[in-house]
Amino acid sequence: MNSAIITVGDEILIGQVTDTNAVWISQQLNNLGVKVEEMVTVSDDPEQISKTLDRYIGLYGLVIMTGGLGPTKDDLTKQTLAEYFQSKMVTHPEVLDRITAFFKDRGRAMIESNIRQADVPDVCRVLMNHHGTAPGMWFEKEGTIVVSLPGVPYEMKGLMKDHLLPEIQQRVRVPHIVHKTIMTQGVPESYLAALLRDWESDLPGCVKLAYLPRPGLVRLRLSVVDKCAKEAEQLLQVIIDKLLKIIPQHIFGYDDIGLEEALGLLLKERGLTLSTAESCTGGNVARLITLVPGCSDYYTGSVIAYENRIKTDVLHVDKALISSKGVVSREVVEQMANGVKSFYRTDTAIATSGIAGPGGGTSDKPVGTTWICVTYGDKIYSKKYLYGGSRERIIDQATYTAMQLLRRLILDTI
Amino acid sequence: MNSAIITVGDEILIGQVTDTNAVWISQQLNNLGVKVEEMVTVSDDPEQISKTLDRYIGLYGLVIMTGGLGPTKDDLTKQTLAEYFQSKMVTHPEVLDRITAFFKDRGRAMIESNIRQADVPDVCRVLMNHHGTAPGMWFEKEGTIVVSLPGVPYEMKGLMKDHLLPEIQQRVRVPHIVHKTIMTQGVPESYLAALLRDWESDLPGCVKLAYLPRPGLVRLRLSVVDKCAKEAEQLLQVIIDKLLKIIPQHIFGYDDIGLEEALGLLLKERGLTLSTAESCTGGNVARLITLVPGCSDYYTGSVIAYENRIKTDVLHVDKALISSKGVVSREVVEQMANGVKSFYRTDTAIATSGIAGPGGGTSDKPVGTTWICVTYGDKIYSKKYLYGGSRERIIDQATYTAMQLLRRLILDTI
Repeated sequence: MNSAIITVGDEILIGQVTDTNAVWISQQLNNLGVKVEEMVTVSDDPEQISKTLDRYIGLYGLVIMTGGLGPTKDDLTKQTLAEYFQSKMVTHPEVLDRITAFFKDRGRAMIESNIRQADVPDVCRVLMNHHGTAPGMWFEKEGTIVVSLPGVPYEMKGLMKDHLLPEIQQRVRVPHIVHKTIMTQGVPESYLAALLRDWESDLPGCVKLAYLPRPGLVRLRLSVVDKCAKEAEQLLQVIIDKLLKIIPQHIFGYDDIGLEEALGLLLKERGLTLSTAESCTGGNVARLITLVPGCSDYYTGSVIAYENRIKTDVLHVDKALISSKGVVSREVVEQMANGVKSFYRTDTAIATSGIAGPGGGTSDKPVGTTWICVTYGDKIYSKKYLYGGSRERIIDQATYTAMQLLRRLILDTI
Repeated sequence: MNSAIITVGDEILIGQVTDTNAVWISQQLNNLGVKVEEMVTVSDDPEQISKTLDRYIGLYGLVIMTGGLGPTKDDLTKQTLAEYFQSKMVTHPEVLDRITAFFKDRGRAMIESNIRQADVPDVCRVLMNHHGTAPGMWFEKEGTIVVSLPGVPYEMKGLMKDHLLPEIQQRVRVPHIVHKTIMTQGVPESYLAALLRDWESDLPGCVKLAYLPRPGLVRLRLSVVDKCAKEAEQLLQVIIDKLLKIIPQHIFGYDDIGLEEALGLLLKERGLTLSTAESCTGGNVARLITLVPGCSDYYTGSVIAYENRIKTDVLHVDKALISSKGVVSREVVEQMANGVKSFYRTDTAIATSGIAGPGGGTSDKPVGTTWICVTYGDKIYSKKYLYGGSRERIIDQATYTAMQLLRRLILDTI
């Protein structure tokens, strides 16, 4: 089965927003073995939408559209689809119930435009949206499935997971593909590729490898095509075992687990508690750790010590040390980690101190210089890093490195 | 002049890479008043490229293509263009000199595939690439300019800046488009549209309005077409003045300024300092505030009090109060705000306490219940909210609301 993705939205055409929906959808479709042949972004304009559908219907088996379904006047996609599929608008009672409940739950009044979101073209099959108010719509014409989804990423993803992906998987006969993603931290993509050159060359022909970098991380996706499930799993195990011998210290998990989740699981498993003392990362470590549901089992909190006075007064960092060694130094970051660990009475702690830029760099300590310290019981480990890129990128890299270092300290692989 | 952007690349169609080139190009073109009508991503496949060009030539004044020009075998775009424009390949001496020098500078040997990069279709005008080895190519047919650029972002940007943008600006007579974005917080998209219905209906025909929601925010983008710059600016001012009378308390800035930046500017301007005490937002407020360069001028830091013991021991929240009122309550969040304000000795403070879910909700305090407190000098303001959506979304909404409340408390518009 082949497919195309249509993104509707002026905000993308003027470069105000990057289209991440199409990327995510194509990843999901490719995982199912559905090839994406084309992605197009058009204006929320009836003529352009209709012309694009004219071109795709009959050509592709599946067309996924996102965007243009909001409650406001500039969202014309639903009306356009009704006209295109020569159908009239009807109120869908189940959707109306859902929208009514949605507003009731939030104690907010429903207005006319919200009610109109329950109107759908009568020829479509409605996909219930459990994550927002705009329903998904499923049309079929000349052997092409056309699905329209809201553009809000979490609503779109919810509808894909709840309805589309399971149904597509059932409907289409696709070549069997087994994917396995290995999560790594600590080596940039190009270095990782160099480190893994021989391992990559030895991969059998039925295995494809993709490097998928994320801020602070690189995911390695292995795809095995046209093997039975058991055979594929066995093959993958052999390949991963080889990989584990080359970069054991950089792998923290599989299949899109977050580093914050992997760290959380380890802390929970060992019955350990964690506190953090952040300077340059400014709360980013705490934010990620607390994004994991149930983190209160192991996380007590953080002291964000942005100002030096907080480092000395709250974390008891030695003032003389800040003067002599500088605030971005091994000595200071170690005192910060020890300070929060005893102040918050935890088993482990993370501390960061660095120059995130764009200002504040010196020839001695340029922008990107970061000291990270992790401590567990009597063990303490600290290291200096020099990160490149924007302020946000430097913060991200320091954040992920810090979490990985603590995992390794606990696992005794540092 | 209108335009389209063609991105060539399988890595984008399988979701491995996000197409940031098209975003950047559309920003640049829009700045010149060249409207981007369509963006499309296709495979590096001669037939698909030719079919797309068939469709665009004669329809748009300008077509910019990126990608598919690398030295490897899977890059077929240049050959496809030569055939499409019925021309033969010739070696371009200036490009060959440039490539030879490029490799000499880097002390690397030139291989056959590098030399072939100096071959270009004889009907095109070559755009010298001072940032890499693949030259840009400029074709014209039936009133359409087709430009092919390499996909490496900094090479593409270099060629755009060196050649394309100046030339387009000179060549084309474009309708003048002026954009203005108004940043709002505190009203969901559908409510905002209802609030602004009359204002929107009164907009003159040359003004387009778009609602662009982001987590916790809604941006309102006004676009004025076909007016001279001065006229457009005056018209926008009148429209914005009217808007300011309807939702003064929800507007925090213009043209994509972040709420964290707007708050930072206000604090700086007034010479005030800020600290934060976060429970449910878990560091997200601190993270955003510290993403702003220079925030150390006003931000001292945060106490992330995830565990109740930190609330009582560090922020001096009354234990009995937690027992009687619950940790998610006005009383507790006010003591948290006062606690961090006096502990960190700041002029202003923000505190949050809520149930981010998915667990922890009760019938009395369901998931999403959040108390937010802001304080400035002797003034204190706290309010309960009920947010919907995922854990991450609840945290985002609480974060933005908290920052906006503090702005309003300082500005005395609460």
